[in-house]
Amino acid sequence: MVQALHSKSSFFTCLLALSLIAVLSSNVEAVTHRHKWEVNYGYKSPDCYKKLAITINGESPGPTIHAQQGDTIVVELNNALFSENVAVHWHGIRQIGTPWSDGTEAVTQCPIMPGDTFIYKFVVDKSNTMNMQAGTYLYHAHYGMQLTAGLYGFIIVSVPDGVLEPFVYDHDRSIILKDWYHASTYEQATGLSSIPFGWVGEPQSLLINGKGRFNCSLLDSSVCNAKNPECSPYSLTVVPGGRYRLRIGSLASLSAMSFEIEGHNMTVVEADGNYVEPFETKHLYINSGETYSVLVKADQDSSRNYWITANVVGRKPSTPTGLAIFNYYPNHRHKKPPTVPTTGPLWNDTASQLAQSRAIKAHHDFVHSPPPRSDRMIVLLNTQNKINGYYHWSLNNRSLTLPATPYLISLKQNFNGAFDQNPPPDSYDVENYDIYSVHDNVNTTSSNAIYSIKFNSTVDIILQNANSMTTGNSETHPWHMHGHDFWVLGFGNGTKFDMVNDPKGFNLVNPIMKNTVPLYPYGWTALRVRTDNPGVWIFHCHIEPHLFMGMGIVFEAGVEKVGKLPKSIMGCGETKRLINP
Amino acid sequence: MVQALHSKSSFFTCLLALSLIAVLSSNVEAVTHRHKWEVNYGYKSPDCYKKLAITINGESPGPTIHAQQGDTIVVELNNALFSENVAVHWHGIRQIGTPWSDGTEAVTQCPIMPGDTFIYKFVVDKSNTMNMQAGTYLYHAHYGMQLTAGLYGFIIVSVPDGVLEPFVYDHDRSIILKDWYHASTYEQATGLSSIPFGWVGEPQSLLINGKGRFNCSLLDSSVCNAKNPECSPYSLTVVPGGRYRLRIGSLASLSAMSFEIEGHNMTVVEADGNYVEPFETKHLYINSGETYSVLVKADQDSSRNYWITANVVGRKPSTPTGLAIFNYYPNHRHKKPPTVPTTGPLWNDTASQLAQSRAIKAHHDFVHSPPPRSDRMIVLLNTQNKINGYYHWSLNNRSLTLPATPYLISLKQNFNGAFDQNPPPDSYDVENYDIYSVHDNVNTTSSNAIYSIKFNSTVDIILQNANSMTTGNSETHPWHMHGHDFWVLGFGNGTKFDMVNDPKGFNLVNPIMKNTVPLYPYGWTALRVRTDNPGVWIFHCHIEPHLFMGMGIVFEAGVEKVGKLPKSIMGCGETKRLINP
Repeated sequence: MVQALHSKSSFFTCLLALSLIAVLSSNVEAVTHRHKWEVNYGYKSPDCYKKLAITINGESPGPTIHAQQGDTIVVELNNALFSENVAVHWHGIRQIGTPWSDGTEAVTQCPIMPGDTFIYKFVVDKSNTMNMQAGTYLYHAHYGMQLTAGLYGFIIVSVPDGVLEPFVYDHDRSIILKDWYHASTYEQATGLSSIPFGWVGEPQSLLINGKGRFNCSLLDSSVCNAKNPECSPYSLTVVPGGRYRLRIGSLASLSAMSFEIEGHNMTVVEADGNYVEPFETKHLYINSGETYSVLVKADQDSSRNYWITANVVGRKPSTPTGLAIFNYYPNHRHKKPPTVPTTGPLWNDTASQLAQSRAIKAHHDFVHSPPPRSDRMIVLLNTQNKINGYYHWSLNNRSLTLPATPYLISLKQNFNGAFDQNPPPDSYDVENYDIYSVHDNVNTTSSNAIYSIKFNSTVDIILQNANSMTTGNSETHPWHMHGHDFWVLGFGNGTKFDMVNDPKGFNLVNPIMKNTVPLYPYGWTALRVRTDNPGVWIFHCHIEPHLFMGMGIVFEAGVEKVGKLPKSIMGCGETKRLINP
Repeated sequence: MVQALHSKSSFFTCLLALSLIAVLSSNVEAVTHRHKWEVNYGYKSPDCYKKLAITINGESPGPTIHAQQGDTIVVELNNALFSENVAVHWHGIRQIGTPWSDGTEAVTQCPIMPGDTFIYKFVVDKSNTMNMQAGTYLYHAHYGMQLTAGLYGFIIVSVPDGVLEPFVYDHDRSIILKDWYHASTYEQATGLSSIPFGWVGEPQSLLINGKGRFNCSLLDSSVCNAKNPECSPYSLTVVPGGRYRLRIGSLASLSAMSFEIEGHNMTVVEADGNYVEPFETKHLYINSGETYSVLVKADQDSSRNYWITANVVGRKPSTPTGLAIFNYYPNHRHKKPPTVPTTGPLWNDTASQLAQSRAIKAHHDFVHSPPPRSDRMIVLLNTQNKINGYYHWSLNNRSLTLPATPYLISLKQNFNGAFDQNPPPDSYDVENYDIYSVHDNVNTTSSNAIYSIKFNSTVDIILQNANSMTTGNSETHPWHMHGHDFWVLGFGNGTKFDMVNDPKGFNLVNPIMKNTVPLYPYGWTALRVRTDNPGVWIFHCHIEPHLFMGMGIVFEAGVEKVGKLPKSIMGCGETKRLINP
């Protein structure tokens, strides 16, 4: 339980600074948290439909990792899958000094083979900038479509003892959101890489803390059993009058969602591990890869329960509302609320989603000012294309295809043949490209080329959305960066980014820092990043089938400063050249 | 087309010897056959039910490899699976001098990772003994349950030009048999390694050259379409009066089968690449891992077609008869025979199966006499056991569990910690063990220990069957040895092997050499092998779920004579110790 003062005065800043100094000088021992994970297949019925999932120690979602800022986390991962490799990414953790622990297959490591045990070891977080890393993070598989298969969970990093947070609560709770498919990930991936194209479609259900609901009535009860307790809705029990910090993270494969607690407003106070200038909302929009903390008061009629709902937004939904119960103690935790669950805001009310994105600003006591100007600007046109008849997503006409040898190793060992050495373009034909119409983009190619960015420089990245290959359609893409938080400078509202005028509107005063940010239909999103973390990092759409179809870029910065790579990340591709029997 | 004289006189032997000398001295260039394979998932409907299979260049069964004796085969295998490794075994090919090309994951190589290309290169065959290696062989995945997933095919090695075979035919045709499951191999493997145990059950269909039939009437037509041409029965077109060599191989996951061509007797002339003293049969019994050549004359009423049938034997069948058409030209190849397909001999007529096994003897002109006595005898009691609540198959109370580091590498590099260094026992409690009753076998353990056998020694292996964990049940197990052909010395008929008297009945005169031999219910099978091929080899039940459950042993012989290992087989487990960045 954490108690903190809420203050808008500079008194708070002062207090915080003092307490930080106190903590940092008090020689507190950082703790090492050791976890043993066995990754295996398991039959799961999260939405009553029984199917094979990839589990950690038999569970999906996996166990929550708890730590305090500055602690070390060690995860000893044994791959007990039969013939399938695995890699796990620690989403939002910057891996300062340990870029080989980022868990990104083909970027920072060879995947972990069946029978092998790999040790992930990293600190949460050494500070390389002002912002320390207490807050809400995620982990998930970063290989093939294994996130979709169910390998995901929370990392919760709390502030050191005695350090105050800029808000008050009595109880700390967490909810992880996921969409769920009944087709196997092998089937999904095969469809995505086939002619004719087999799209994964909308998910069968939305899971709240690993529990959802699917209408079993049409299916064989051996496959779908509505009475299976495994799929009874998650129930969040609250004490009347209690003040709750609710951490909400999404690791959806596809769906953006609106999250709501019937009859209760939420005050947003944290986003992706960064404190937010508090604002109240009825719906929290959340994209895959994002985390938020909201404060909720259990101050409603406590004689009944309330619905917690998750609804698809951003795509025309065909998935039932995800349901959980906001349970006022001492009501029975499975007592149904007397109301009809909300279906949430209109799925295509982009304006409302955009308004939330714009409302998220750094807490006034935790503003980390961005550098006033950038050294380089990379504009990335997001398009859907066909290459040799296969559907892809592309940035500036390059669709990312990952190499057999991880970039981090290729770069350190000078394996120049391991990937295309010609960097991809920094921009597109801004002047002539019509973002509102379908394009053939016949020059699009698959490429494993990467961006090389000067270490300790400031880069602006402009994500520019466009029409997909469907007339009148442009999709929302949540972009996630590894190894860094970035400043969110601004969003365009259904327009092409104007190089001259739009930068004038950038928020350089109190931009939020995040690791995942949405790009809205036909719009643009501008972000600024300091390349202060030596390594090779992927920046990609967090919709797993989109990444699978090439929607990402890879960049290196300061890779020459990376220390000696551990042997354990090797074994695949050209790294075999380093074997000397 | 091959023409040869059929002769039982010693004239033939002389002719053969002369022609062999002629060929060997004529400085014929051995040819290298290069194949490029992409291993990928593909939707297949071999029995009208659409499911994901593992394919080679889009096909399951994969392409037939053709070569002449002494040729070199190079298969450049690119793994295009998304997150799953692969390894391919060349079944029956001895890999003399290239034990690292045997394709056995965890024994001779690390598996091939997605994105990687591995080059298998081997000769078919350098002769290390009298028997050269022309004949009928197989290939298939040797990792997890990927054989069941559809990665399998033929290797057909013909005699060098001018060399005569001891039988005559006009046409050479081949048929590969398989049983087929609708559940994914991940589901099957998960069931096998779960509590409660989930047995794979009987297959949904039997495939003849990749085509079978499943009753689609109860299923959704998007999943099962009886009109899909992919599952129209295979048709073998014959010319009236033609003499056919029909090569038959089985790579069933589970099922032993009886194979029959309605109205046509078959003359068995080859077994596992060795010439057989010809005998006629109506049914050919064939186990997984076995190959046969039979001669068939198209000498029946040619105005109609005939059924080719495959039926399950050895287990109580619940799988429909596998059907193909023996099509007399010029009848339409899909014209149904006017008769009802046979359901074959009684599934539990073990005596008839045993009689066939005993009838298979070396062709009198191709007898390779076994050494008159052995240097060592290993008796392997085949039992089904529970270990910590999990079902296993065991040999002398050891259930094989494969290590993360391939044995071949561990042995050559002295990685003593990579597997249990205490060899498994050479026998069991022969005197007291009742093979007819269910045993707890509480001392059974999982083990990765191996047998170390003197190089160039002669070993007798007695496979002793016993009751499974089901009262009154003992199963048939086809045992397959890598790296060697062995002599089949004898079979026991539902009895325990008698160390004193049974060896007196061993056939040391004209035993057939084989690489796969059945062990019948409650019986024993005795075989003799010369350990003349340096390497590490697995000897195992060829029923894939049985091997998965531990039914095999591994032995090394002369591993110190193995040349420098290629780096390409490394990358997993302790082989990472050899990486020097």
